[in-house]
Amino acid sequence: MTGTKKQSLYVIKVGGNVIDNEALLPAFLKDLSNIQGNFILIHGGGKIATRIGEKLGIEAKMVDGRRITDAQTIDLVTMVYAGLVNKQIVAKLQAIGCNAIGLSGADGNIIPATKRPVKTVDYGFVGDVKPEDINAHAVKALLDAGMNPVFSPLTHDGHGQMLNTNADTIASSLAIALGELYHVRLIYCFEKKGVLRDANDDNTVINLIDRPIYNQLLADNILFDGILPKLENAFAAIESGVGEVLIGHADDVLQNTTDAVAGTLIR
Amino acid sequence: MTGTKKQSLYVIKVGGNVIDNEALLPAFLKDLSNIQGNFILIHGGGKIATRIGEKLGIEAKMVDGRRITDAQTIDLVTMVYAGLVNKQIVAKLQAIGCNAIGLSGADGNIIPATKRPVKTVDYGFVGDVKPEDINAHAVKALLDAGMNPVFSPLTHDGHGQMLNTNADTIASSLAIALGELYHVRLIYCFEKKGVLRDANDDNTVINLIDRPIYNQLLADNILFDGILPKLENAFAAIESGVGEVLIGHADDVLQNTTDAVAGTLIR
Repeated sequence: MTGTKKQSLYVIKVGGNVIDNEALLPAFLKDLSNIQGNFILIHGGGKIATRIGEKLGIEAKMVDGRRITDAQTIDLVTMVYAGLVNKQIVAKLQAIGCNAIGLSGADGNIIPATKRPVKTVDYGFVGDVKPEDINAHAVKALLDAGMNPVFSPLTHDGHGQMLNTNADTIASSLAIALGELYHVRLIYCFEKKGVLRDANDDNTVINLIDRPIYNQLLADNILFDGILPKLENAFAAIESGVGEVLIGHADDVLQNTTDAVAGTLIR
Repeated sequence: MTGTKKQSLYVIKVGGNVIDNEALLPAFLKDLSNIQGNFILIHGGGKIATRIGEKLGIEAKMVDGRRITDAQTIDLVTMVYAGLVNKQIVAKLQAIGCNAIGLSGADGNIIPATKRPVKTVDYGFVGDVKPEDINAHAVKALLDAGMNPVFSPLTHDGHGQMLNTNADTIASSLAIALGELYHVRLIYCFEKKGVLRDANDDNTVINLIDRPIYNQLLADNILFDGILPKLENAFAAIESGVGEVLIGHADDVLQNTTDAVAGTLIR
Protein backbone atom coordinates (compact mmCIF):
# COMPACT_ATOMS: atom_id res chain seq x y z
CA MET A 1 0.00 0.00 0.00
CA THR A 2 3.07 2.26 0.13
CA GLY A 3 2.57 5.43 -1.83
CA THR A 4 -1.21 5.19 -2.05
CA LYS A 5 -2.92 7.90 -0.06
CA LYS A 6 -5.70 6.61 2.17
CA GLN A 7 -9.19 8.13 1.86
CA SER A 8 -10.46 10.06 4.87
CA LEU A 9 -13.09 8.64 7.18
CA TYR A 10 -14.85 10.36 10.09
CA VAL A 11 -15.89 8.01 12.87
CA ILE A 12 -18.36 10.03 14.91
CA LYS A 13 -19.85 9.16 18.28
CA VAL A 14 -22.86 11.14 19.47
CA GLY A 15 -24.09 10.82 23.03
CA GLY A 16 -27.57 10.27 24.43
CA ASN A 17 -27.76 13.87 25.67
CA VAL A 18 -27.66 15.10 22.06
CA ILE A 19 -29.96 12.33 20.72
CA ASP A 20 -32.55 13.12 23.42
CA ASN A 21 -32.40 16.87 22.80
CA GLU A 22 -34.90 18.07 20.22
CA ALA A 23 -33.07 21.39 19.93
CA LEU A 24 -29.62 19.86 19.31
CA LEU A 25 -30.39 16.79 17.21
CA PRO A 26 -31.65 18.35 13.94
CA ALA A 27 -28.66 20.73 13.70
CA PHE A 28 -26.28 17.87 14.45
CA LEU A 29 -27.81 15.66 11.75
CA LYS A 30 -27.70 18.56 9.29
CA ASP A 31 -23.98 19.08 9.98
CA LEU A 32 -23.47 15.34 9.56
CA SER A 33 -25.21 15.32 6.19
CA ASN A 34 -22.95 18.17 5.04
CA ILE A 35 -19.74 16.19 5.58
CA GLN A 36 -17.87 15.80 2.33
CA GLY A 37 -16.74 12.20 2.17
CA ASN A 38 -17.04 9.06 4.21
CA PHE A 39 -18.40 8.94 7.73
CA ILE A 40 -19.86 6.44 10.15
CA LEU A 41 -21.97 7.36 13.18
CA ILE A 42 -22.22 5.58 16.54
CA HIS A 43 -25.05 6.68 18.82
CA GLY A 44 -25.92 6.18 22.48
CA GLY A 45 -29.45 6.43 23.81
CA GLY A 46 -29.48 5.46 27.50
CA LYS A 47 -32.16 7.78 28.84
CA ILE A 48 -34.85 6.68 26.39
CA ALA A 49 -34.15 3.05 27.39
CA THR A 50 -34.53 3.96 31.07
CA ARG A 51 -37.83 5.76 30.39
CA ILE A 52 -39.34 2.90 28.37
CA GLY A 53 -37.90 0.38 30.85
CA GLU A 54 -39.77 2.11 33.67
CA LYS A 55 -43.05 1.73 31.77
CA LEU A 56 -42.27 -1.98 31.26
CA GLY A 57 -41.36 -2.45 34.91
CA ILE A 58 -37.66 -2.97 34.13
CA GLU A 59 -35.55 -1.11 36.65
CA ALA A 60 -32.28 0.50 35.50
CA LYS A 61 -29.50 -1.01 37.61
CA MET A 62 -26.26 0.98 37.41
CA VAL A 63 -22.85 0.21 38.92
CA ASP A 64 -20.16 2.90 38.53
CA GLY A 65 -22.22 4.58 35.83
CA ARG A 66 -22.53 1.36 33.82
CA ARG A 67 -25.83 -0.37 33.16
CA ILE A 68 -26.20 -3.93 34.46
CA THR A 69 -27.73 -5.79 31.53
CA ASP A 70 -29.89 -8.71 32.65
CA ALA A 71 -32.04 -10.76 30.23
CA GLN A 72 -34.94 -8.27 30.32
CA THR A 73 -32.58 -5.35 29.86
CA ILE A 74 -30.77 -6.71 26.80
CA ASP A 75 -34.18 -7.12 25.12
CA LEU A 76 -35.08 -3.58 26.20
CA VAL A 77 -31.92 -1.97 24.83
CA THR A 78 -32.08 -4.06 21.65
CA MET A 79 -35.57 -2.65 21.07
CA VAL A 80 -34.74 0.90 21.98
CA TYR A 81 -31.21 1.32 20.62
CA ALA A 82 -31.36 -0.84 17.46
CA GLY A 83 -35.05 -0.19 16.82
CA LEU A 84 -36.47 3.13 17.95
CA VAL A 85 -33.39 5.36 18.24
CA ASN A 86 -31.46 3.91 15.31
CA LYS A 87 -34.32 3.99 12.80
CA GLN A 88 -35.44 7.48 13.82
CA ILE A 89 -31.92 8.75 13.16
CA VAL A 90 -31.75 6.90 9.85
CA ALA A 91 -35.16 8.18 8.70
CA LYS A 92 -34.19 11.75 9.65
CA LEU A 93 -30.87 11.49 7.80
CA GLN A 94 -32.62 10.09 4.72
CA ALA A 95 -35.00 13.07 4.85
CA ILE A 96 -32.07 15.46 4.39
CA GLY A 97 -30.46 13.49 1.58
CA CYS A 98 -27.96 11.45 3.56
CA ASN A 99 -28.00 7.75 2.65
CA ALA A 100 -27.72 6.23 6.13
CA ILE A 101 -27.93 2.51 6.89
CA GLY A 102 -28.71 1.60 10.50
CA LEU A 103 -26.91 -1.36 12.04
CA SER A 104 -26.07 -3.18 15.23
CA GLY A 105 -22.76 -4.96 15.67
CA ALA A 106 -24.47 -8.27 14.81
CA ASP A 107 -25.38 -7.05 11.32
CA GLY A 108 -22.88 -8.26 8.76
CA ASN A 109 -20.99 -9.69 11.76
CA ILE A 110 -19.27 -6.30 11.86
CA ILE A 111 -18.67 -6.14 15.63
CA PRO A 112 -18.26 -9.55 17.30
CA ALA A 113 -17.74 -9.35 21.05
CA THR A 114 -17.18 -11.50 24.12
CA LYS A 115 -19.54 -11.49 27.08
CA ARG A 116 -17.68 -9.77 29.91
CA PRO A 117 -16.35 -12.32 32.44
CA VAL A 118 -17.82 -12.03 35.93
CA LYS A 119 -15.27 -10.67 38.40
CA THR A 120 -16.42 -8.50 41.32
CA VAL A 121 -19.47 -7.34 39.32
CA ASP A 122 -21.70 -9.38 36.99
CA TYR A 123 -22.50 -6.88 34.25
CA GLY A 124 -24.76 -9.42 32.54
CA PHE A 125 -25.13 -9.30 28.76
CA VAL A 126 -22.35 -6.78 28.19
CA GLY A 127 -19.89 -7.27 25.35
CA ASP A 128 -16.17 -6.49 25.26
CA VAL A 129 -14.81 -5.69 21.81
CA LYS A 130 -11.36 -6.22 20.34
CA PRO A 131 -10.59 -3.93 17.37
CA GLU A 132 -8.83 -6.79 15.56
CA ASP A 133 -12.10 -8.79 15.52
CA ILE A 134 -14.02 -6.03 13.72
CA ASN A 135 -14.97 -6.72 10.13
CA ALA A 136 -13.63 -3.50 8.60
CA HIS A 137 -14.06 -4.70 5.01
CA ALA A 138 -17.84 -5.03 5.49
CA VAL A 139 -17.93 -1.38 6.61
CA LYS A 140 -15.87 -0.42 3.55
CA ALA A 141 -18.26 -2.34 1.26
CA LEU A 142 -21.17 -0.26 2.63
CA LEU A 143 -19.26 3.01 2.27
CA ASP A 144 -18.18 2.06 -1.27
CA ALA A 145 -21.86 1.42 -2.11
CA GLY A 146 -22.65 5.01 -1.03
CA MET A 147 -24.19 4.14 2.35
CA ASN A 148 -23.18 5.68 5.69
CA PRO A 149 -23.38 3.13 8.53
CA VAL A 150 -25.15 4.30 11.71
CA PHE A 151 -24.38 1.96 14.62
CA SER A 152 -26.44 1.39 17.73
CA PRO A 153 -24.28 0.45 20.75
CA LEU A 154 -24.91 -3.29 20.51
CA THR A 155 -22.70 -6.22 19.62
CA HIS A 156 -23.19 -10.01 19.57
CA ASP A 157 -21.36 -13.05 20.89
CA GLY A 158 -21.43 -15.13 17.71
CA HIS A 159 -23.62 -17.71 19.45
CA GLY A 160 -26.95 -15.95 18.99
CA GLN A 161 -26.84 -13.54 21.92
CA MET A 162 -26.99 -9.76 21.54
CA LEU A 163 -24.72 -7.83 23.93
CA ASN A 164 -24.80 -4.27 25.26
CA THR A 165 -21.56 -2.36 24.61
CA ASN A 166 -20.45 1.14 25.53
CA ALA A 167 -20.82 3.42 22.51
CA ASP A 168 -17.53 5.27 23.19
CA THR A 169 -15.71 1.94 23.12
CA ILE A 170 -17.43 0.86 19.91
CA ALA A 171 -16.42 4.17 18.34
CA SER A 172 -12.75 3.84 19.27
CA SER A 173 -12.69 0.17 18.26
CA LEU A 174 -14.24 0.94 14.86
CA ALA A 175 -11.80 3.84 14.43
CA ILE A 176 -8.82 1.56 15.15
CA ALA A 177 -10.09 -1.24 12.89
CA LEU A 178 -10.79 1.16 10.04
CA GLY A 179 -7.43 2.86 10.50
CA GLU A 180 -5.90 0.18 8.28
CA LEU A 181 -8.12 1.18 5.37
CA TYR A 182 -8.66 4.90 5.92
CA HIS A 183 -7.09 7.99 7.46
CA VAL A 184 -9.46 8.16 10.43
CA ARG A 185 -10.54 11.14 12.50
CA LEU A 186 -12.47 9.96 15.56
CA ILE A 187 -14.92 12.57 16.87
CA TYR A 188 -16.76 12.42 20.20
CA CYS A 189 -19.74 14.79 20.08
CA PHE A 190 -21.49 15.62 23.31
CA GLU A 191 -23.17 18.54 25.07
CA LYS A 192 -19.98 20.21 26.33
CA LYS A 193 -17.54 22.39 24.37
CA GLY A 194 -14.67 19.93 24.85
CA VAL A 195 -12.46 18.73 27.67
CA LEU A 196 -12.84 21.42 30.33
CA ARG A 197 -10.47 22.60 33.08
CA ASP A 198 -13.63 23.49 35.02
CA ALA A 199 -16.57 21.18 34.32
CA ASN A 200 -18.99 24.05 35.05
CA ASP A 201 -17.36 26.61 32.75
CA ASP A 202 -17.60 26.13 28.99
CA ASN A 203 -14.91 28.79 28.52
CA THR A 204 -12.20 26.53 29.93
CA VAL A 205 -11.80 24.19 26.94
CA ILE A 206 -8.36 22.60 26.70
CA ASN A 207 -7.72 22.80 22.95
CA LEU A 208 -4.91 20.29 22.69
CA ILE A 209 -4.09 17.25 24.79
CA ASP A 210 -1.16 14.96 24.17
CA ARG A 211 0.14 12.22 26.45
CA PRO A 212 2.38 14.47 28.63
CA ILE A 213 -0.41 17.06 29.05
CA TYR A 214 -2.87 14.25 29.87
CA ASN A 215 -0.55 12.84 32.53
CA GLN A 216 -0.22 16.31 34.06
CA LEU A 217 -4.03 16.81 34.02
CA LEU A 218 -4.43 13.45 35.76
CA ALA A 219 -1.76 14.36 38.33
CA ASP A 220 -3.51 17.68 38.99
CA ASN A 221 -6.82 15.77 39.34
CA ILE A 222 -8.80 18.42 37.50
CA LEU A 223 -10.64 16.27 34.92
CA PHE A 224 -14.25 15.39 35.69
CA ASP A 225 -14.98 11.67 35.89
CA GLY A 226 -17.25 11.42 32.87
CA ILE A 227 -14.50 12.49 30.49
CA LEU A 228 -11.91 9.92 31.61
CA PRO A 229 -13.27 6.93 29.62
CA LYS A 230 -13.46 9.14 26.50
CA LEU A 231 -9.82 10.20 26.94
CA GLU A 232 -8.68 6.63 27.62
CA ASN A 233 -10.49 5.49 24.46
CA ALA A 234 -8.99 8.44 22.57
CA PHE A 235 -5.41 7.62 23.51
CA ALA A 236 -5.96 3.91 22.83
CA ALA A 237 -7.15 4.92 19.36
CA ILE A 238 -4.24 7.30 18.70
CA GLU A 239 -1.73 4.69 19.82
CA SER A 240 -3.33 2.15 17.46
CA GLY A 241 -3.09 4.17 14.27
CA VAL A 242 -6.05 6.57 14.35
CA GLY A 243 -5.00 9.90 12.85
CA GLU A 244 -6.55 12.20 15.43
CA VAL A 245 -9.35 12.43 17.97
CA LEU A 246 -11.59 15.44 18.48
CA ILE A 247 -13.89 15.89 21.48
CA GLY A 248 -16.45 18.67 21.61
CA HIS A 249 -19.96 20.06 21.30
CA ALA A 250 -22.24 18.54 18.68
CA ASP A 251 -22.80 22.04 17.25
CA ASP A 252 -19.13 22.76 16.65
CA VAL A 253 -16.97 19.79 15.93
CA LEU A 254 -18.52 18.67 12.65
CA GLN A 255 -18.18 22.14 11.16
CA ASN A 256 -14.41 22.01 11.46
CA THR A 257 -13.51 18.86 9.69
CA THR A 258 -10.18 20.22 8.42
CA ASP A 259 -9.03 22.33 11.38
CA ALA A 260 -9.57 21.77 15.06
CA VAL A 261 -10.51 25.29 16.08
CA ALA A 262 -13.39 24.05 18.22
CA GLY A 263 -13.28 21.37 20.89
CA THR A 264 -10.33 19.43 22.19
CA LEU A 265 -7.88 17.79 19.82
CA ILE A 266 -6.10 14.69 21.10
CA ARG A 267 -2.75 13.80 19.54
CA MET B 1 -28.33 -8.06 -20.91
CA THR B 2 -29.46 -10.43 -23.70
CA GLY B 3 -27.72 -13.77 -23.46
CA THR B 4 -26.50 -13.28 -19.88
CA LYS B 5 -28.19 -15.65 -17.48
CA LYS B 6 -29.48 -13.97 -14.35
CA GLN B 7 -28.34 -15.26 -10.96
CA SER B 8 -31.01 -16.83 -8.75
CA LEU B 9 -32.42 -15.02 -5.73
CA TYR B 10 -34.83 -16.35 -3.13
CA VAL B 11 -37.06 -13.67 -1.60
CA ILE B 12 -38.47 -15.33 1.51
CA LYS B 13 -41.26 -14.05 3.74
CA VAL B 14 -41.71 -15.70 7.13
CA GLY B 15 -44.76 -14.96 9.24
CA GLY B 16 -45.12 -14.05 12.89
CA ASN B 17 -46.52 -17.49 13.75
CA VAL B 18 -43.17 -19.05 12.80
CA ILE B 19 -41.06 -16.28 14.40
CA ASP B 20 -42.99 -16.61 17.67
CA ASN B 21 -42.69 -20.41 17.72
CA GLU B 22 -39.61 -21.67 19.52
CA ALA B 23 -40.07 -25.13 18.00
CA LEU B 24 -40.32 -23.91 14.38
CA LEU B 25 -37.87 -20.99 14.28
CA PRO B 26 -34.50 -22.77 14.76
CA ALA B 27 -35.23 -25.35 12.04
CA PHE B 28 -36.42 -22.61 9.70
CA LEU B 29 -33.27 -20.55 10.24
CA LYS B 30 -31.13 -23.66 9.74
CA ASP B 31 -32.84 -24.37 6.40
CA LEU B 32 -32.33 -20.73 5.46
CA SER B 33 -28.61 -20.89 6.23
CA ASN B 34 -28.32 -24.00 4.01
CA ILE B 35 -29.58 -22.21 0.91
CA GLN B 36 -26.93 -22.25 -1.79
CA GLY B 37 -26.87 -18.77 -3.27
CA ASN B 38 -28.52 -15.44 -2.71
CA PHE B 39 -31.51 -14.90 -0.47
CA ILE B 40 -33.24 -12.10 1.35
CA LEU B 41 -35.65 -12.58 4.26
CA ILE B 42 -38.68 -10.49 5.23
CA HIS B 43 -40.19 -11.18 8.64
CA GLY B 44 -43.43 -10.26 10.41
CA GLY B 45 -43.74 -10.13 14.18
CA GLY B 46 -47.20 -8.86 15.09
CA LYS B 47 -47.93 -10.83 18.25
CA ILE B 48 -44.78 -9.77 20.09
CA ALA B 49 -45.66 -6.12 19.35
CA THR B 50 -49.14 -6.65 20.77
CA ARG B 51 -47.73 -8.28 23.91
CA ILE B 52 -45.16 -5.53 24.58
CA GLY B 53 -47.74 -2.90 23.63
CA GLU B 54 -50.07 -4.21 26.33
CA LYS B 55 -47.33 -3.77 28.94
CA LEU B 56 -46.79 -0.19 27.70
CA GLY B 57 -50.52 0.54 27.75
CA ILE B 58 -50.75 0.74 23.95
CA GLU B 59 -53.87 -1.03 22.78
CA ALA B 60 -53.77 -2.96 19.48
CA LYS B 61 -56.46 -1.46 17.22
CA MET B 62 -57.31 -3.68 14.26
CA VAL B 63 -59.64 -2.99 11.31
CA ASP B 64 -60.20 -5.90 8.88
CA GLY B 65 -57.15 -7.67 10.28
CA ARG B 66 -54.91 -4.63 9.74
CA ARG B 67 -53.25 -2.78 12.58
CA ILE B 68 -54.15 0.90 12.96
CA THR B 69 -50.79 2.58 13.47
CA ASP B 70 -51.05 5.72 15.58
CA ALA B 71 -48.01 7.69 16.81
CA GLN B 72 -47.45 5.43 19.84
CA THR B 73 -47.88 2.32 17.73
CA ILE B 74 -45.34 3.26 15.05
CA ASP B 75 -42.77 3.75 17.84
CA LEU B 76 -43.79 0.39 19.32
CA VAL B 77 -43.47 -1.55 16.06
CA THR B 78 -40.22 0.24 15.18
CA MET B 79 -38.80 -0.96 18.50
CA VAL B 80 -40.14 -4.48 18.27
CA TYR B 81 -39.85 -5.24 14.54
CA ALA B 82 -36.61 -3.39 13.66
CA GLY B 83 -35.04 -3.84 17.09
CA LEU B 84 -35.96 -6.93 19.06
CA VAL B 85 -37.24 -9.33 16.39
CA ASN B 86 -34.86 -8.28 13.63
CA LYS B 87 -31.68 -8.41 15.71
CA GLN B 88 -32.58 -11.70 17.39
CA ILE B 89 -33.01 -13.27 13.94
CA VAL B 90 -29.74 -11.75 12.72
CA ALA B 91 -27.79 -12.90 15.80
CA LYS B 92 -29.23 -16.42 15.45
CA LEU B 93 -28.34 -16.56 11.74
CA GLN B 94 -24.81 -15.33 12.46
CA ALA B 95 -24.50 -18.11 15.07
CA ILE B 96 -25.04 -20.73 12.34
CA GLY B 97 -22.64 -19.13 9.89
CA CYS B 98 -25.08 -17.10 7.81
CA ASN B 99 -23.93 -13.52 7.27
CA ALA B 100 -27.23 -11.69 7.79
CA ILE B 101 -27.65 -7.91 7.85
CA GLY B 102 -30.84 -6.64 9.48
CA LEU B 103 -32.60 -3.67 7.91
CA SER B 104 -35.76 -1.63 7.79
CA GLY B 105 -36.97 -0.06 4.57
CA ALA B 106 -35.44 3.27 5.66
CA ASP B 107 -31.93 1.81 5.71
CA GLY B 108 -30.08 2.59 2.53
CA ASN B 109 -33.38 4.15 1.37
CA ILE B 110 -34.17 0.68 0.06
CA ILE B 111 -37.97 0.84 0.51
CA PRO B 112 -39.44 4.35 0.26
CA ALA B 113 -43.19 4.45 0.77
CA THR B 114 -46.15 6.83 0.84
CA LYS B 115 -48.36 7.25 3.89
CA ARG B 116 -51.69 5.69 3.03
CA PRO B 117 -54.29 8.35 2.20
CA VAL B 118 -57.26 8.50 4.57
CA LYS B 119 -60.45 7.23 2.89
CA THR B 120 -63.07 5.43 4.98
CA VAL B 121 -60.41 4.27 7.47
CA ASP B 122 -57.42 6.24 8.81
CA TYR B 123 -54.74 3.56 9.09
CA GLY B 124 -52.30 6.08 10.55
CA PHE B 125 -48.59 5.63 9.91
CA VAL B 126 -48.97 2.87 7.33
CA GLY B 127 -46.88 2.93 4.17
CA ASP B 128 -47.86 1.88 0.66
CA VAL B 129 -44.97 0.68 -1.50
CA LYS B 130 -44.47 0.81 -5.26
CA PRO B 131 -41.99 -1.78 -6.57
CA GLU B 132 -40.55 0.77 -9.01
CA ASP B 133 -39.47 2.99 -6.07
CA ILE B 134 -37.41 0.21 -4.45
CA ASN B 135 -33.65 0.63 -4.55
CA ALA B 136 -32.79 -2.80 -5.95
CA HIS B 137 -29.14 -1.89 -6.60
CA ALA B 138 -28.55 -1.26 -2.89
CA VAL B 139 -29.84 -4.78 -2.16
CA LYS B 140 -27.55 -6.15 -4.87
CA ALA B 141 -24.57 -4.30 -3.36
CA LEU B 142 -25.22 -6.03 -0.02
CA LEU B 143 -25.63 -9.46 -1.65
CA ASP B 144 -22.46 -8.90 -3.72
CA ALA B 145 -20.61 -8.09 -0.48
CA GLY B 146 -21.68 -11.49 0.90
CA MET B 147 -24.43 -10.21 3.20
CA ASN B 148 -28.02 -11.51 3.26
CA PRO B 149 -30.51 -8.71 3.98
CA VAL B 150 -33.16 -9.45 6.63
CA PHE B 151 -36.00 -6.92 6.46
CA SER B 152 -38.37 -5.93 9.22
CA PRO B 153 -41.80 -4.86 7.87
CA LEU B 154 -41.15 -1.12 8.06
CA THR B 155 -40.69 1.57 5.43
CA HIS B 156 -40.26 5.34 5.54
CA ASP B 157 -41.83 8.36 3.85
CA GLY B 158 -38.59 10.14 2.89
CA HIS B 159 -39.49 13.02 5.22
CA GLY B 160 -38.25 11.45 8.44
CA GLN B 161 -41.25 9.32 9.36
CA MET B 162 -41.11 5.54 9.73
CA LEU B 163 -44.16 3.69 8.37
CA ASN B 164 -45.67 0.28 9.13
CA THR B 165 -46.06 -1.91 6.03
CA ASN B 166 -47.50 -5.38 5.53
CA ALA B 167 -44.65 -7.90 5.29
CA ASP B 168 -46.33 -9.90 2.48
CA THR B 169 -46.54 -6.73 0.42
CA ILE B 170 -42.90 -5.84 1.11
CA ALA B 171 -41.89 -9.34 0.02
CA SER B 172 -43.78 -9.19 -3.28
CA SER B 173 -42.56 -5.62 -3.94
CA LEU B 174 -38.93 -6.59 -3.30
CA ALA B 175 -39.38 -9.68 -5.49
CA ILE B 176 -40.74 -7.57 -8.34
CA ALA B 177 -38.03 -4.89 -8.02
CA LEU B 178 -35.26 -7.49 -7.88
CA GLY B 179 -36.74 -9.37 -10.82
CA GLU B 180 -34.87 -7.01 -13.12
CA LEU B 181 -31.52 -8.11 -11.67
CA TYR B 182 -32.16 -11.74 -10.66
CA HIS B 183 -34.28 -14.76 -11.50
CA VAL B 184 -36.50 -14.49 -8.41
CA ARG B 185 -38.37 -17.19 -6.54
CA LEU B 186 -40.72 -15.61 -3.99
CA ILE B 187 -41.48 -17.91 -1.05
CA TYR B 188 -44.17 -17.33 1.59
CA CYS B 189 -43.41 -19.48 4.65
CA PHE B 190 -46.10 -19.89 7.26
CA GLU B 191 -47.54 -22.51 9.58
CA LYS B 192 -49.74 -24.27 7.01
CA LYS B 193 -48.69 -26.79 4.35
CA GLY B 194 -49.73 -24.51 1.50
CA VAL B 195 -52.95 -23.20 0.01
CA LEU B 196 -55.59 -25.61 1.30
CA ARG B 197 -58.96 -26.68 -0.12
CA ASP B 198 -60.04 -27.19 3.50
CA ALA B 199 -58.41 -24.76 5.95
CA ASN B 200 -58.65 -27.36 8.72
CA ASP B 201 -57.08 -30.23 6.78
CA ASP B 202 -53.37 -30.09 5.98
CA ASN B 203 -53.83 -32.97 3.51
CA THR B 204 -55.74 -30.77 1.07
CA VAL B 205 -52.85 -28.76 -0.32
CA ILE B 206 -53.42 -27.43 -3.82
CA ASN B 207 -50.00 -28.01 -5.42
CA LEU B 208 -50.34 -25.74 -8.42
CA ILE B 209 -52.38 -22.59 -8.94
CA ASP B 210 -52.42 -20.56 -12.11
CA ARG B 211 -54.78 -17.73 -12.99
CA PRO B 212 -57.64 -19.92 -14.37
CA ILE B 213 -57.46 -22.26 -11.36
CA TYR B 214 -57.39 -19.21 -9.02
CA ASN B 215 -60.48 -17.75 -10.67
CA GLN B 216 -62.27 -21.08 -10.28
CA LEU B 217 -61.24 -21.32 -6.58
CA LEU B 218 -62.58 -17.79 -6.04
CA ALA B 219 -65.83 -18.64 -7.85
CA ASP B 220 -66.21 -21.77 -5.70
CA ASN B 221 -65.53 -19.61 -2.60
CA ILE B 222 -63.39 -22.27 -0.93
CA LEU B 223 -60.26 -20.24 -0.05
CA PHE B 224 -59.97 -19.02 3.54
CA ASP B 225 -59.72 -15.26 3.94
CA GLY B 226 -56.17 -15.13 5.31
CA ILE B 227 -54.70 -16.61 2.15
CA LEU B 228 -56.30 -14.15 -0.29
CA PRO B 229 -53.81 -11.26 0.22
CA LYS B 230 -50.91 -13.73 -0.23
CA LEU B 231 -52.39 -14.99 -3.49
CA GLU B 232 -53.11 -11.47 -4.74
CA ASN B 233 -49.50 -10.51 -3.94
CA ALA B 234 -48.30 -13.71 -5.60
CA PHE B 235 -50.12 -13.06 -8.87
CA ALA B 236 -49.06 -9.41 -8.87
CA ALA B 237 -45.46 -10.64 -8.55
CA ILE B 238 -45.79 -13.27 -11.32
CA GLU B 239 -47.38 -10.73 -13.65
CA SER B 240 -44.49 -8.32 -12.97
CA GLY B 241 -41.64 -10.63 -13.87
CA VAL B 242 -41.07 -12.79 -10.78
CA GLY B 243 -40.15 -16.32 -11.88
CA GLU B 244 -42.37 -18.26 -9.49
CA VAL B 245 -44.04 -18.05 -6.11
CA LEU B 246 -44.14 -20.85 -3.56
CA ILE B 247 -46.44 -20.86 -0.50
CA GLY B 248 -46.05 -23.43 2.24
CA HIS B 249 -44.90 -24.59 5.64
CA ALA B 250 -41.64 -23.17 7.01
CA ASP B 251 -40.36 -26.73 7.47
CA ASP B 252 -40.86 -27.76 3.85
CA VAL B 253 -40.55 -25.03 1.30
CA LEU B 254 -36.89 -24.11 1.82
CA GLN B 255 -35.83 -27.72 1.39
CA ASN B 256 -37.16 -27.83 -2.14
CA THR B 257 -35.47 -24.92 -3.77
CA THR B 258 -35.32 -26.61 -7.19
CA ASP B 259 -38.62 -28.53 -7.33
CA ALA B 260 -41.93 -27.58 -5.84
CA VAL B 261 -42.90 -30.93 -4.37
CA ALA B 262 -44.04 -29.30 -1.11
CA GLY B 263 -46.42 -26.39 -0.74
CA THR B 264 -48.34 -24.55 -3.42
CA LEU B 265 -46.60 -23.30 -6.54
CA ILE B 266 -48.11 -20.24 -8.19
CA ARG B 267 -47.47 -19.75 -11.90
